[in-house]
Amino acid sequence: MTNHKSPMTKNKITSLFNIKYPIIQGGMIWCSGWELASAVSNSGGLGLIGSGSMYPEILEEHIQKCKKATNKPFGVNVPLLYPQTDELMEIIIREGVKIVFTSAGNPKKYTALLKDHGIVVAHVIANKKFAQKAVEAGVDAIVSEGFEAGGHNGFEETTTMVLTPMIREIVDIPIIAAGGIGSGKSMFAAMALGADGVQIGSRFAASIEASGHRNFKNAIASAQEGDTSLTLKKIVPVRLIKNEFYNRVKLAEDTGASEDDLRELLGKGRAKMGMYEGDLNEGELEIGQVSGMIDDILPVSEIMENIILEFNETAKRMKEIVI
Amino acid sequence: MTNHKSPMTKNKITSLFNIKYPIIQGGMIWCSGWELASAVSNSGGLGLIGSGSMYPEILEEHIQKCKKATNKPFGVNVPLLYPQTDELMEIIIREGVKIVFTSAGNPKKYTALLKDHGIVVAHVIANKKFAQKAVEAGVDAIVSEGFEAGGHNGFEETTTMVLTPMIREIVDIPIIAAGGIGSGKSMFAAMALGADGVQIGSRFAASIEASGHRNFKNAIASAQEGDTSLTLKKIVPVRLIKNEFYNRVKLAEDTGASEDDLRELLGKGRAKMGMYEGDLNEGELEIGQVSGMIDDILPVSEIMENIILEFNETAKRMKEIVI
Repeated sequence: MTNHKSPMTKNKITSLFNIKYPIIQGGMIWCSGWELASAVSNSGGLGLIGSGSMYPEILEEHIQKCKKATNKPFGVNVPLLYPQTDELMEIIIREGVKIVFTSAGNPKKYTALLKDHGIVVAHVIANKKFAQKAVEAGVDAIVSEGFEAGGHNGFEETTTMVLTPMIREIVDIPIIAAGGIGSGKSMFAAMALGADGVQIGSRFAASIEASGHRNFKNAIASAQEGDTSLTLKKIVPVRLIKNEFYNRVKLAEDTGASEDDLRELLGKGRAKMGMYEGDLNEGELEIGQVSGMIDDILPVSEIMENIILEFNETAKRMKEIVI
Repeated sequence: MTNHKSPMTKNKITSLFNIKYPIIQGGMIWCSGWELASAVSNSGGLGLIGSGSMYPEILEEHIQKCKKATNKPFGVNVPLLYPQTDELMEIIIREGVKIVFTSAGNPKKYTALLKDHGIVVAHVIANKKFAQKAVEAGVDAIVSEGFEAGGHNGFEETTTMVLTPMIREIVDIPIIAAGGIGSGKSMFAAMALGADGVQIGSRFAASIEASGHRNFKNAIASAQEGDTSLTLKKIVPVRLIKNEFYNRVKLAEDTGASEDDLRELLGKGRAKMGMYEGDLNEGELEIGQVSGMIDDILPVSEIMENIILEFNETAKRMKEIVI
């Protein structure tokens, strides 16, 4: 890949993906379709279609629409836990997608296949063990995701402040920090901790172009500190906005519910119910802690401008500090 | 107070406490007596005697020894939850201590008294509500402590990455970030997030001068990622190294133990048993997530040098980044 022409020519993430800013929009189920992904890519970041909520034919449609909506690089995020993963990968390869982010599974299974087709592969991890596995699998970059991130998360509960330098110590490939990052200040901090770029979810979920339900976007904008919780730890930890469904889970957990009890309580389709259909009481509302600092729903272009502006202000402020 | 002579003359924390570096050593029960506090102060930071584990006469002795061991400013940390707090405050005032950090309680009760005696007061918070209360109480600085910190912690579980800019938005007084900070990189990141200085606990608990048991220091040095957990949330959340005692708590919690059950299981004196007497199986071992990155027990002077060196390296590296 060729380097782009921005001043940030030495950045490993902009070079790897051939983008202007080292800002990745996280693939989020029910929220990141072609409209969000193409808007982020058109603004100089890397947009990702989140395939976790898509049937194969839906993913195909989103890829095709994304290609029409942008001539910039974009990618697809594939959580490796659904039965249709093989079909999704076939479509990605057939459609000529150049970038894939895998998550929630073993990077070994698909990395070689994707790279054989010239696809750049990044893998999401939350601990050192999987960072090492990802490197061994031959991925091009790692997304290092801290406890404060929305959605599914690691059992270790290591935060971005601790995880980022911890992963930096053991891998040489580019690192994209995720979790708790929604502004230029936190982007700058993540890069100081050793990341080469950042992945931002929640801030983009509360954008005009995100495909989540209006109710969900409003819930993100009105969420305050402490309004999310990492829950369902007996199944797989997931960070949700606290609502009526969450309260039932909490009560069940506090009184000793088993994994089976919790699976029954969870049932099926709650993520769609909450984030896509807008049922704020009964749905799963997956979002990061940083939602407590988000209070508006903005166009992607404005979100990107704000981040870059604040990043540069922070860089300027930090240049003055000498100890 | 007069400004010191270092290049960092504009820093609000170094000015407030009349110290060289904006690095506070967190007051930690059983770990931070006069030896640790004076060593940190002698190295250019601010040492704090942790009075949480001290009877009044013991605190008096530590203050007197600290005064002999350093001519630099030092302070006392007072958790506002013990019955003897009035007596501790009397001793602090009588001994002419100039700096007090309060924590774990309402800042309203003692701030005016302390300030009437010319004492600089900082208060530890983990959420916006208590940050505002602290400002209203008239404190001179806030310690903003994230989820990753060791020991007692907030119910909101907000991480340093999210909490620091969140508190920065609502207060104008100096902010000292805490939680997950044990190196120059994370110190620089915390200041990028909006902190004026940092409070470091775990890294100093694993120092030669810390008063914790050798076994506890070794446990910090050998702790890996995921080896601590925020637990006992039905009582007051506390971050501990996972050991046999923790495993029993976890099992009890997973099977629905009540607050009373947990209080019985906890009993009395486990913090002393673990951190001061070195019982790694049955004691409470309070330490932060950053212990996963600490693998040696060093003299305070070396810890301080390493932090400053890495801070300056990070500052240099970040100056090169333009986006």
